[in-house]
Amino acid sequence: MAVRLYVEKRLTKGAAFELGPEQTHYLVHVMRLAARDRVRLFNGRDGEWDAVIEKQSKKRILIAPKKCCRPQDTIANLWFLFAPIKRNCIDNLVEKATELGVAHLKPVVTERTETKRINMKRLKAHVIEAAEQTKRLCIPKIDEAKPLEKVLNDWPSARRLLLCDETGGGPPILEAIVRAGPGEWAILTGPEGGFTRGELDALRQLPFVISASLGPRVLRADTAAIAALTCWQAVLGDWKKRPNFRFKETTS
Amino acid sequence: MAVRLYVEKRLTKGAAFELGPEQTHYLVHVMRLAARDRVRLFNGRDGEWDAVIEKQSKKRILIAPKKCCRPQDTIANLWFLFAPIKRNCIDNLVEKATELGVAHLKPVVTERTETKRINMKRLKAHVIEAAEQTKRLCIPKIDEAKPLEKVLNDWPSARRLLLCDETGGGPPILEAIVRAGPGEWAILTGPEGGFTRGELDALRQLPFVISASLGPRVLRADTAAIAALTCWQAVLGDWKKRPNFRFKETTS
Repeated sequence: MAVRLYVEKRLTKGAAFELGPEQTHYLVHVMRLAARDRVRLFNGRDGEWDAVIEKQSKKRILIAPKKCCRPQDTIANLWFLFAPIKRNCIDNLVEKATELGVAHLKPVVTERTETKRINMKRLKAHVIEAAEQTKRLCIPKIDEAKPLEKVLNDWPSARRLLLCDETGGGPPILEAIVRAGPGEWAILTGPEGGFTRGELDALRQLPFVISASLGPRVLRADTAAIAALTCWQAVLGDWKKRPNFRFKETTS
Repeated sequence: MAVRLYVEKRLTKGAAFELGPEQTHYLVHVMRLAARDRVRLFNGRDGEWDAVIEKQSKKRILIAPKKCCRPQDTIANLWFLFAPIKRNCIDNLVEKATELGVAHLKPVVTERTETKRINMKRLKAHVIEAAEQTKRLCIPKIDEAKPLEKVLNDWPSARRLLLCDETGGGPPILEAIVRAGPGEWAILTGPEGGFTRGELDALRQLPFVISASLGPRVLRADTAAIAALTCWQAVLGDWKKRPNFRFKETTS
């Protein structure tokens, strides 16, 4: 399978450019690619391009887009609000959210959030890597962490906020999503220790909040997030679309 | 929140017993519990019991069940067939499958399965820990790994097998599950590299196999598993049940 890289440069036929030092290192020293090898490029605007390495040295790669092989698509403008959790788990969480088609990642600090400092650079690198592997044509935006209260104060009133309520307060999640129907949505999951009773009470009183239950067992923060994003994509998102790239590549 | 422990002993009022060395170590040295402290016990048969530590030394704990606080329930007899993946990922996978209510874990070796040796002892310990934390009243069974072909040859014909088909060959997953309806089910996900074309062709011809698509992006093996188990529980499983233990404990 071809290596896929996210780049910021404009992609247009034959307009060669140099890759940055990290991607150069990856292609030369990890993937061991050289002149005339092919890679795939995307930038979130111009679709996916078949590209060829024109010149390669240890520290420089010049790469030229040759042919657009997938037109740019758009994904649902789904937001994902999550309380930061500990290091490996947060990496896993943003990776899964990227695979599950989130457009905008918004870390929120809740009362029981223990992880208050986030390494944004590392998180962005994870998000890009996940987008490359999951064959997205865009990368999710990611905000700096903000207090949940502040995010709720500035909330756009037309956007629904699905609250994964671990106390079982809301209707079952599929029912909650089907009942509210299409529109702009965000999904909110709590930290390891859950939301406090005060937070849950305040959230439930907001007109845009839709509580939902994720069944009778306790789910870890990351499981709850993947489960909620899955239900949303399966009911209102793009899971009815077929992949437009796979049949060729999976012939063995 | 009380410590929950899975034990094999019969649980009945006042019938005290000694814990094994690992659980003793955990209670004494990790949780720092002592005589008169309370824990919760379950064994998969007698419900959940409030229990009290009667005697404690560095190496011995005598514990007595006092009161049954949750009656034994039954969970759906859902099987989960998965190709073993690398160490940390497989730990994560069985943990999530336990949270998502799987009754029986069946590792299957497929053509592209690279991880052929599984440390069953470690995996069982993970499954028990996950069951304790997710508040299950039973632990999932877990088989030794077998070749996929052998498992399919011995298949009980009335049980449906949901194939997470990364080529997008099947209908969207919710549609596939809703259309087939209630009954005995199993869910199958592949290894990191996916199934081979030959495996997919063979699987699709089996009368009990139901192919399903998980949307237009490539999902990692563990994401696909969590997503498929979520959809099954949300449509046919117990996600319409409310938790029967949480309101008290989440008051802050």
